[in-house]
Amino acid sequence: MNLTINQKDFYHGVQIVQRAVASRSTLPILKGIYLEAVKDKGLKLIANNLEMGIEYWVKANIIEEGIFVLPANELSNILRELPAAEISFQVDKSNYQAKINCLNSRFTLKGYQADEFPQLPEVEGALSFNFNALTFREMIEEVKFSTSTDQTQPTLTGGLLVLSPGEISLVATNTYRLAYSKREINNDLDKEVKVILPGTTLNELNHLIGDEEDEMNILLNESYVRFTFNEIVFISRLIEGQFPNYKQVIPVDFKSSVKIDRVEFLNAVKRVSLIARLDSNVITLNVNKDQMSISSTSTEYGDALELVEIELEGEEQTINIDANYLMDVLRTLKSELVNILLIGPLNPLTIRKYPEDNYIYLIMPVRPGA
Amino acid sequence: MNLTINQKDFYHGVQIVQRAVASRSTLPILKGIYLEAVKDKGLKLIANNLEMGIEYWVKANIIEEGIFVLPANELSNILRELPAAEISFQVDKSNYQAKINCLNSRFTLKGYQADEFPQLPEVEGALSFNFNALTFREMIEEVKFSTSTDQTQPTLTGGLLVLSPGEISLVATNTYRLAYSKREINNDLDKEVKVILPGTTLNELNHLIGDEEDEMNILLNESYVRFTFNEIVFISRLIEGQFPNYKQVIPVDFKSSVKIDRVEFLNAVKRVSLIARLDSNVITLNVNKDQMSISSTSTEYGDALELVEIELEGEEQTINIDANYLMDVLRTLKSELVNILLIGPLNPLTIRKYPEDNYIYLIMPVRPGA
Repeated sequence: MNLTINQKDFYHGVQIVQRAVASRSTLPILKGIYLEAVKDKGLKLIANNLEMGIEYWVKANIIEEGIFVLPANELSNILRELPAAEISFQVDKSNYQAKINCLNSRFTLKGYQADEFPQLPEVEGALSFNFNALTFREMIEEVKFSTSTDQTQPTLTGGLLVLSPGEISLVATNTYRLAYSKREINNDLDKEVKVILPGTTLNELNHLIGDEEDEMNILLNESYVRFTFNEIVFISRLIEGQFPNYKQVIPVDFKSSVKIDRVEFLNAVKRVSLIARLDSNVITLNVNKDQMSISSTSTEYGDALELVEIELEGEEQTINIDANYLMDVLRTLKSELVNILLIGPLNPLTIRKYPEDNYIYLIMPVRPGA
Repeated sequence: MNLTINQKDFYHGVQIVQRAVASRSTLPILKGIYLEAVKDKGLKLIANNLEMGIEYWVKANIIEEGIFVLPANELSNILRELPAAEISFQVDKSNYQAKINCLNSRFTLKGYQADEFPQLPEVEGALSFNFNALTFREMIEEVKFSTSTDQTQPTLTGGLLVLSPGEISLVATNTYRLAYSKREINNDLDKEVKVILPGTTLNELNHLIGDEEDEMNILLNESYVRFTFNEIVFISRLIEGQFPNYKQVIPVDFKSSVKIDRVEFLNAVKRVSLIARLDSNVITLNVNKDQMSISSTSTEYGDALELVEIELEGEEQTINIDANYLMDVLRTLKSELVNILLIGPLNPLTIRKYPEDNYIYLIMPVRPGA
């Protein structure tokens, strides 16, 4: 392999695939990046930790084709520190070494035989559809914080992707709270398809999808999902198992509907949580005619009380909930107003954007005196 | 105690004194901030972890005078999150509670009886002199990274402050490297005075001294040093014991003098250190007629070689040193060029600013083949 490549392009490409490099692995080659130089096409980079894999092509002037694997961290560190100039990159297969030269810098980096590197799996017999990448990122942001971190219940550590005729939705829950994000989509489905995407996959997609309104292709079979966007190919295993029946827990009838300014509400909860977090993190929402009081008491440190103006339709209510669950959603949503829907002190609290209709967030209450 | 105070002023003051709050202490009151409301003067804040103490006055409208102590972290968190508005602050001594009200926020925070709080010590029988605060900060920056972290040699964890007729200097060493920063000063001393300032004191002073060219007053006796600048009173204990004789290790005769661009040199060392840090962190400097090569080899990962243009007076030389010790000083200095002075491979390498004469930095070499 022999090529010249721009430092910025090379480093950018390595940063993209690096997200799928195995951080801890007994197989050293999985801590590497697979490089394939193809004439007239450039340099292909692949990382694959067997749960998740990323492929990305970088512009390069290929003098001699070839394949090789280099340790990801060391390659990335070197490329980051090199000056913004042309890099000459050569692999000496006889001793498994890559020579990386750039202006007055000369590096030799030892690598691995590339044929041992696990290529990305083919996603065969798959359902294929297109969707706006930015909208998908928005859906991910709206639900990902609700996944569980409890590894004994693997299905809850991921997000459920549901495709049905004309609709796409994403659901995540740790059983104490649930986030549900839904959008319209053009598809020719005649039945519902459900798969569970790992939480790390949601996080990495969220990082990799840029700010451009690009179309994204999604390929889906029973074992894998493949996203193609912005010249990035991203493959992930799916989580096997049964996701809880989320539909039956989403309430439809309410006793009270509260309209409230999202940022004002967030700031008030943030302040009360300064006291709440010293104990159990529980805050009390007291919904009255024109205002909501948010309060918490710590026997050791003191207490906090905040008043926020609201518009209430229906009954006055009191409910105890975890402050973090509330702050997570208020930080994520972007709407100016949110709608809080209540049934009673033992029923979940529902939050929706106001006036939009594509998002539902539930928080299970803490029993009074619990 | 009863007063009104601006949220920004109060939070700013708490942030300043908070640096001297005990983070871990068996005495809960040392994790607190002492508050004293004095009519026509404002609100005095004190923190004191017994090693170091800070006093700062905040503008406030005092309705009723008084003293009280509140837990620093909780107070600081609450003040940070409150809106930028006027705070009403009242202490109810009967139940040791402070009421902090601001717009729609009401906090009650439990505190401590203030008479148990250790006041800042008087610095009696002290030497007093003035010095430019910014220049002192520059001196601290030039030496503080050279202090030792080895607690078994307490004197090396601090910086030696030396006052002599017309001169002030600061020295730090961990025995493998040494930094010495010197300035002129107007004083009426007739003998040399030496004290050791703790490393944390140097760090906190470095943070607290702002960007204004203010005059700083320094009071010094055998146990304490007190700095007064920018309305901040900062008191620190001194470290007792004997600081090594730094003068005898500073070389005066050299075989080679190298002039080199500081940033170019730093970037080259940074890149070579990417390989060096995978092993022992040692790099080799090879000083030739017009250029210096900087190199390192790792048997497991590969090697790195960098070439930088230099101006050499004297002999060609080769020396092995720790890359971090070199990067620390190259990152800290601000001059465009630096001067490297060499004697031989077993003698310390000296770095000075070029063309300035107020700074000396030594690195002990690593024996070839060690």
